[in-house]
Amino acid sequence: MQLSHLDENNRPKMVNVAEKEISSRLARASGVIKVSQEAFHAVKAKAVKKGAVLETAVIAAIMGAKKTSELIPMCHPLNISGVEVDIEEDEKMCAFKLFVSVKCEGKTGVEMEALSGVSIGLLTIYDMLKAIDKSMEISNIVLEHKKGGKSGEFKRV
Amino acid sequence: MQLSHLDENNRPKMVNVAEKEISSRLARASGVIKVSQEAFHAVKAKAVKKGAVLETAVIAAIMGAKKTSELIPMCHPLNISGVEVDIEEDEKMCAFKLFVSVKCEGKTGVEMEALSGVSIGLLTIYDMLKAIDKSMEISNIVLEHKKGGKSGEFKRV
Amino acid sequence: MQLSHLDENNRPKMVNVAEKEISSRLARASGVIKVSQEAFHAVKAKAVKKGAVLETAVIAAIMGAKKTSELIPMCHPLNISGVEVDIEEDEKMCAFKLFVSVKCEGKTGVEMEALSGVSIGLLTIYDMLKAIDKSMEISNIVLEHKKGGKSGEFKRV
Amino acid sequence: MQLSHLDENNRPKMVNVAEKEISSRLARASGVIKVSQEAFHAVKAKAVKKGAVLETAVIAAIMGAKKTSELIPMCHPLNISGVEVDIEEDEKMCAFKLFVSVKCEGKTGVEMEALSGVSIGLLTIYDMLKAIDKSMEISNIVLEHKKGGKSGEFKRV
Amino acid sequence: MQLSHLDENNRPKMVNVAEKEISSRLARASGVIKVSQEAFHAVKAKAVKKGAVLETAVIAAIMGAKKTSELIPMCHPLNISGVEVDIEEDEKMCAFKLFVSVKCEGKTGVEMEALSGVSIGLLTIYDMLKAIDKSMEISNIVLEHKKGGKSGEFKRV
Amino acid sequence: MQLSHLDENNRPKMVNVAEKEISSRLARASGVIKVSQEAFHAVKAKAVKKGAVLETAVIAAIMGAKKTSELIPMCHPLNISGVEVDIEEDEKMCAFKLFVSVKCEGKTGVEMEALSGVSIGLLTIYDMLKAIDKSMEISNIVLEHKKGGKSGEFKRV
Repeated sequence: MQLSHLDENNRPKMVNVAEKEISSRLARASGVIKVSQEAFHAVKAKAVKKGAVLETAVIAAIMGAKKTSELIPMCHPLNISGVEVDIEEDEKMCAFKLFVSVKCEGKTGVEMEALSGVSIGLLTIYDMLKAIDKSMEISNIVLEHKKGGKSGEFKRV
Repeated sequence: MQLSHLDENNRPKMVNVAEKEISSRLARASGVIKVSQEAFHAVKAKAVKKGAVLETAVIAAIMGAKKTSELIPMCHPLNISGVEVDIEEDEKMCAFKLFVSVKCEGKTGVEMEALSGVSIGLLTIYDMLKAIDKSMEISNIVLEHKKGGKSGEFKRV
Repeated sequence: MQLSHLDENNRPKMVNVAEKEISSRLARASGVIKVSQEAFHAVKAKAVKKGAVLETAVIAAIMGAKKTSELIPMCHPLNISGVEVDIEEDEKMCAFKLFVSVKCEGKTGVEMEALSGVSIGLLTIYDMLKAIDKSMEISNIVLEHKKGGKSGEFKRV
Repeated sequence: MQLSHLDENNRPKMVNVAEKEISSRLARASGVIKVSQEAFHAVKAKAVKKGAVLETAVIAAIMGAKKTSELIPMCHPLNISGVEVDIEEDEKMCAFKLFVSVKCEGKTGVEMEALSGVSIGLLTIYDMLKAIDKSMEISNIVLEHKKGGKSGEFKRV
Repeated sequence: MQLSHLDENNRPKMVNVAEKEISSRLARASGVIKVSQEAFHAVKAKAVKKGAVLETAVIAAIMGAKKTSELIPMCHPLNISGVEVDIEEDEKMCAFKLFVSVKCEGKTGVEMEALSGVSIGLLTIYDMLKAIDKSMEISNIVLEHKKGGKSGEFKRV
Repeated sequence: MQLSHLDENNRPKMVNVAEKEISSRLARASGVIKVSQEAFHAVKAKAVKKGAVLETAVIAAIMGAKKTSELIPMCHPLNISGVEVDIEEDEKMCAFKLFVSVKCEGKTGVEMEALSGVSIGLLTIYDMLKAIDKSMEISNIVLEHKKGGKSGEFKRV
């Protein structure tokens, strides 16, 4: 089995997708940041007013998804057609779960865009809370759902 | 308690660090990607020859650390003075653990640079293996160690 | 009335344009910088020879238009197909009026590209003259004309 | 009089600031966007809940200030030490006035950073409201205040 | 004869390609770096193990090709569909010859993407060897082959 | 002999310069583009009026020098304090020789900034002339002069 991102000399390459069909692509990824009780409540206290921490994370996630091909060496530049971000709060666990959905009409999938958006959104929450808590943990960054393209649909079970 | 990244109207701001002392800063972060057995062995097979997957991740992590202030809205631009990346392979778990250490002489810490480097390095591994395995999971992204600055040393226990 | 850039929870989102038709898009924007007499003549003196101030502004405007989706959080990345810049000099007012026209075949308009190009071109003129005059004013940044897309033609009156 | 951004052949150059003293720099700039009554109230309606339009503009202004040296050809890259953004609402005029303050310890001023932040913040408001109103006008982008450096203090009168 | 990148006032413009046909584009460029014997063998010594110098250059070339429209003022942003990099070693001459092939379906050619990839790949080799040899020379950067578009095929003789 | 950009496992790293002294750095690099007679005269014809081709190359070289640490994986981000560009025309050879001088106060040299500026300036000339001549050749990219830092002065002989 040959990794598609390596050529016959095992040098990295950006796979040629020119021959692929254009199809409607969707990818949805998610990830979690666990924070201290104190940090969780600091966010919530703001959220009542303006939610500036989570709002900033949403914007960072969208802008981060757009930057994917600059960050991940073998990713194709592509014109994503839409990005949506959701954040679920888990008060019991003192955790925030961030979801990013990316859509595109194109020859290559948008999994990396969704995953990068999630990562950068979570890092932004870390950044805004790190004065309170340095032991936060980012985890469970996974692809939830993917549609479109030759490899077909993927749903995380 | 007021989050330092929010002003008195709870608007996000980039904290003013002008008055802070310049000190030697170090931050070390890590994170893990768990992959399928098939994907793990695809990397290892290459590693014997050239390790192109992990090599690409190392470079992406370094370049990603440099991009931190473009990605995380409230991060200060800063001239990091060094970045090192290590990757540990856990054959039993089919996992790669990626470490990034960042150094800087400056007025603000480099935790976010280390954490961003880790995240982007792990996403790069995901990207290069996703043709084999779409259910990989990125987790345990944490700050391991931090030195320098007014808040002093932090060591993850 | 719901703002299209906000989702049902009022979180910012990048609007999905996947279902939209591709059409020929054009946008033309303009803006003005008013400068001191001394600064105006400094530009003109150069213009006789090489016009380096205005030339630099033209290039900055074109490069700035290309950067729009990195600057404006909810803007879609898109492959603009052409950019033209004009500068009118108003000797009586000691003002420069900068026009940017952007073309694209796509699913979303290029108003923001034209407006960003104008803003960055004018800021470049400010930068190059600020040693002479710090009280310059940038104003009248408006969309002059827009064609293509479902919302049809717009002409400023 | 020779423009400092042009060399003796009138070619653009990035002025050498190596010999300059490091000093504490501050610049504060402002600008205005005038919108339709309908657009103004759309923002206000959201503001009661979350203020997502203005919140997004604040973040775009901060990130835009950090991008100044990529946008303005002759600007020096520099490590700004803080950015704050304020927005005043003028209900009678249906206008938003955006202020950006930038601080830096360095050899060159931060006027362009403040002015770029203002411009990009205002463009972001335009972007988020353009579905309602395409005739909005951005104006009065000026330097309000500047401190530090050889040229001393400047206060707009 | 009028240069296509200048308008009728000799101002630079980004040529409008909206009316052009979409076609399959290919460009292949190459360039050479001549290094000292000591530097050449330092790379080779590593190459036996991991080839980290050349591997880094390959990745830099691919990422550099993606950045072309940010670097070259009048270049159109475009979604390249594939990039491949080869490096030939000339032991007798102590030289490395780097090839970059870029593919795209679009309205404009990818010569500049291939040439930029070559240049940045060679600069990366320079960077990694400059502690050993500062007199290295980069030369022979040329377009080898180009296909697609109205101007047809070009093969360097 | 160990390459400084590789760690003890031959993984690329960004060398730590934290312990180095700050010194005044200068680097001057140059490179040549040879073009057809027709292309050479097209530039000159414009030059009489406005020199837009060479002017654009000058600006691209300056902006390219600022982007070096984004392009060359192991380069440190740094705040260059000045950039100057010169272009010599060689009518007999139909060639342009481009020089870039970069200054910085810092812990690491600016050779790569000067060389990147030269490369991007020459690529810009290629871009603007490629409609006339596709067989142009970029060559002789070398470091001319370097001052400052522990390794001392270097002058190309």
